[in-house]
Amino acid sequence: MNYSAGTVNKLVVVGIGLIGGSLAAGLKQRGGCAEVIGIALDEATCHIARELGIVDRAFTALAAIASELAEGDVIFIAVPTLAVPEVLAEIRQCVAPTVTITDGASVKGNIEQAALAIYGQMPPQLVLGHPIAGSEKSGVTAANPDLYVNHRVILTPAATTAASHIDRVTRLWEAVGAEVLQMTVSEHDEVLAATSHLPHAIAYALVDTLARDIDNPNIFRYAAGGFRDFTRIASSDPRMWHDIMRANKMAILQALDLFIDNLTRLRTGIEKEDADYLLDVFTHSKDARDKLVENMLPQRPKHQLE
Amino acid sequence: MNYSAGTVNKLVVVGIGLIGGSLAAGLKQRGGCAEVIGIALDEATCHIARELGIVDRAFTALAAIASELAEGDVIFIAVPTLAVPEVLAEIRQCVAPTVTITDGASVKGNIEQAALAIYGQMPPQLVLGHPIAGSEKSGVTAANPDLYVNHRVILTPAATTAASHIDRVTRLWEAVGAEVLQMTVSEHDEVLAATSHLPHAIAYALVDTLARDIDNPNIFRYAAGGFRDFTRIASSDPRMWHDIMRANKMAILQALDLFIDNLTRLRTGIEKEDADYLLDVFTHSKDARDKLVENMLPQRPKHQLE
Repeated sequence: MNYSAGTVNKLVVVGIGLIGGSLAAGLKQRGGCAEVIGIALDEATCHIARELGIVDRAFTALAAIASELAEGDVIFIAVPTLAVPEVLAEIRQCVAPTVTITDGASVKGNIEQAALAIYGQMPPQLVLGHPIAGSEKSGVTAANPDLYVNHRVILTPAATTAASHIDRVTRLWEAVGAEVLQMTVSEHDEVLAATSHLPHAIAYALVDTLARDIDNPNIFRYAAGGFRDFTRIASSDPRMWHDIMRANKMAILQALDLFIDNLTRLRTGIEKEDADYLLDVFTHSKDARDKLVENMLPQRPKHQLE
Repeated sequence: MNYSAGTVNKLVVVGIGLIGGSLAAGLKQRGGCAEVIGIALDEATCHIARELGIVDRAFTALAAIASELAEGDVIFIAVPTLAVPEVLAEIRQCVAPTVTITDGASVKGNIEQAALAIYGQMPPQLVLGHPIAGSEKSGVTAANPDLYVNHRVILTPAATTAASHIDRVTRLWEAVGAEVLQMTVSEHDEVLAATSHLPHAIAYALVDTLARDIDNPNIFRYAAGGFRDFTRIASSDPRMWHDIMRANKMAILQALDLFIDNLTRLRTGIEKEDADYLLDVFTHSKDARDKLVENMLPQRPKHQLE
């Protein structure tokens, strides 16, 4: 896919952390827009972002550059999930409605609700989205221009979202190597609850169990590589995951209940030494997981990237 | 650490799969013993092991070479957990008591019980052990001479185990790059239940939940790299994990109960939007997991290996 350059004029990233900083750095490195502007709460982050070449300019308030934004420009809201509504409200006050707005929050239902409350309807220029990429690292220094290469981005446009804005956001993500998909807000939140939010809850609870409840100070000393992989997501940012658990509460509780039921059945199978049940669950899971890996996007070597 | 060559004369690996084949290949490649002999149930596996250079000789029955074994030789039992007692009984019948015996089963309590039943006491030449290494792959073709490099091996000698046999097994593992530790059988089984068996039960139950209980045929399509890492262990061999769940049943049930309690408390915290509780659990887990990674053995580049 080859899209003409210059589709995005200015990119404004509100929140220069892992998610925002990586889009800024990736687009800047690939020449995918005319200018990248960063907005961060503190000047120290702005300074680092400029020094690292992640942004062309950086400011501590959106108001500083709001008046210069026009059609063709895109604002990417990359602040913590629960802080997105505040930014949206500020954008409505000081930015022209011709400017495309998108976000990177991990939950979409609560953002949709906030947008409805702020705008009275879903505004045509607001394209809610979620890049399915991340890292247990966070902050501006974790920004990586290749973070989105071969990753999927889910957009959840509403019926009232304008096609021109959807196209612009789609091209933005494709320019940094991502594959863009669309689904509804509710499907997004259900799928992510199951494949991301539930695993994070489980990983946090597992490490917490071992650290606090098991009476052995050396418990982690003998853990092998499998345990390191399995618990990697428990090293994720606690505040971010608190926000997600709250924002997607209902879908997460549903997934958690299904999982706890299933695990409790497995516990009974182990207790009763029910070989048929255990082999059925393990074999079914192995098959499903092996197929999942086959269907994931291939990891292309870096030199093949544009 | 530099140990004199020739400490182990012949290594006999009973079961030429991932675990046995990797020790055979690793020791052979490093010249750590005079000869490597493989025993597998079927001739096809023997043939592959010879062809791949994993073993010098291979047979379908231990009886074929039992009479030639003597002091200085080591038998490594690397068959599925529940099949170890049968091999032990055969060794007692046809192998001289001067030959060192060790094993690689993931659970030690049931093997200890079997040895007591077969020998009437823990024989001095039997050194129970467990290499903390593995892969979701299995079988002779998954054998990897570097599998144990920088991995830990836990030995669980009894009071009656002879120091000379413990030394020989220790040197065997160190020769393929592993670090050898000792602990009691019960501590081993408790630690492994928590750090390995419980995570496997969780991973299997999670993938099973997503595959069967969540009403979305595309559920795995949007899974990201974090999910792939988190569920890697659900691609492990179902029969092997059935055996482990049965062999270490009591310790696994204990760990499962602690985890289910903990996860249920987390569920309540999410439901009640209890920010203090969620942040406490997430922060505590992140700290514990970050420390775990710091304390793990470093991944040395391959060219630094002997």
